Amino acid sequence: MEQEARPFVEHLGLSQVEGFFPSHSPFLAFEGTSGACNVTVITFGKDQIYGTGVDNVGTVPSSLATFLALQKKPFDLVLNAGTCGGFQRKGLGIGNVVLTTGVANHDRRIPIPGFDAFGVGKLTTLDPSKMADALGYKTGICTTGNSLDKVEKDDELMLANDASVKDMEAGAIAWICKMCNFPYLGVKVVTDIVDGGVPTQEEFLANLSAAAQSLQAALPKVLEYVSDKQLEDL
Amino acid sequence: MEQEARPFVEHLGLSQVEGFFPSHSPFLAFEGTSGACNVTVITFGKDQIYGTGVDNVGTVPSSLATFLALQKKPFDLVLNAGTCGGFQRKGLGIGNVVLTTGVANHDRRIPIPGFDAFGVGKLTTLDPSKMADALGYKTGICTTGNSLDKVEKDDELMLANDASVKDMEAGAIAWICKMCNFPYLGVKVVTDIVDGGVPTQEEFLANLSAAAQSLQAALPKVLEYVSDKQLEDL
Repeated sequence: MEQEARPFVEHLGLSQVEGFFPSHSPFLAFEGTSGACNVTVITFGKDQIYGTGVDNVGTVPSSLATFLALQKKPFDLVLNAGTCGGFQRKGLGIGNVVLTTGVANHDRRIPIPGFDAFGVGKLTTLDPSKMADALGYKTGICTTGNSLDKVEKDDELMLANDASVKDMEAGAIAWICKMCNFPYLGVKVVTDIVDGGVPTQEEFLANLSAAAQSLQAALPKVLEYVSDKQLEDL
Repeated sequence: MEQEARPFVEHLGLSQVEGFFPSHSPFLAFEGTSGACNVTVITFGKDQIYGTGVDNVGTVPSSLATFLALQKKPFDLVLNAGTCGGFQRKGLGIGNVVLTTGVANHDRRIPIPGFDAFGVGKLTTLDPSKMADALGYKTGICTTGNSLDKVEKDDELMLANDASVKDMEAGAIAWICKMCNFPYLGVKVVTDIVDGGVPTQEEFLANLSAAAQSLQAALPKVLEYVSDKQLEDL
């Protein structure tokens, strides 16, 4: 979402790149540097299709934008940076930064052998444990679904996915990175407690701005950490 | 799915086009003619990411493959041809062919003003009523979700979407077509009854082969119908 990206884009003084994406797509790209890193931030733009004008969210816009960005030029690392719900049963609280160890989906139930595992779509991604120790962040699995809220079946499947955090894009973005052979790391800030009893949308809206600021503080630290290391040393 | 596409590809004697999609993507394309129509069939290929080897299904692979195909060359019409669940409350039975009037999603619940409508993602697509009358097919709205089965909340939202049929791709493919300004028409054959009390996966597997044959019979009729008409005369 624009609100998640803007503080970071402004902090680094990134410039919007015209023509990075096909003109009929809503996606946006911003480029610049952070220390020794060349940085491209992509956002999924605003909805022009349904006439709502809200941010494009979820697995379909995010997977397409990621694929198109990865076609444009080589990247050393894809960071999926954004807000998430956190599970208090995994020791998470609002504002915590979580480096994700893998992804899975909780809203792709296909009860046919083989298709069931495809639907869950578990992927183990870059091991962030050394980085998390160095920066004082937490780690855990991110479970993805296209709904901000949850139903009882989602609870069951998020538990089965051993999720620490819940978002609406990671499973799809990591799928694209795997297809295109780019390393993926999720950097997520908790806006709401999934297993806390308060409706997600209330906590999410109340904490979005603060979480975006927290993300803006965390991302330069992540970039500084990765900037002088090879992938295998992260 | 390959099982849905193969009878049609073989019936028309289409040839696989190497290099149509980027080599790291799993998607496949087949080209040829049907009467006066140039036909390109795309399928989403097999899963190589999660190691299941099953067909790629759902909104993420289908939206990306559609976008990439529409970048390749101009098309007069995008047909989303495949199997679906049908609602008996809408008068549908197994084997029925349905030309869809629009799409919506039932698994993108985002209870924030504006985002709620984005999540449902209703689109009215090409009006198929004259074609349906001419060919003896039914019409109705297709509701999309990434699960083959359904939970109680899905039932509520599929009803709210006024759905006649349920699939796992239409909402995303129509979104891409709208973005890229291509006309979209769903041609769906019913494999299972959504509101019939039998688990979808049982009916789906039992009827998939027969439905694919029914689709193979219907598609040439649709192509013949559209081949000598302008879009506004369909």
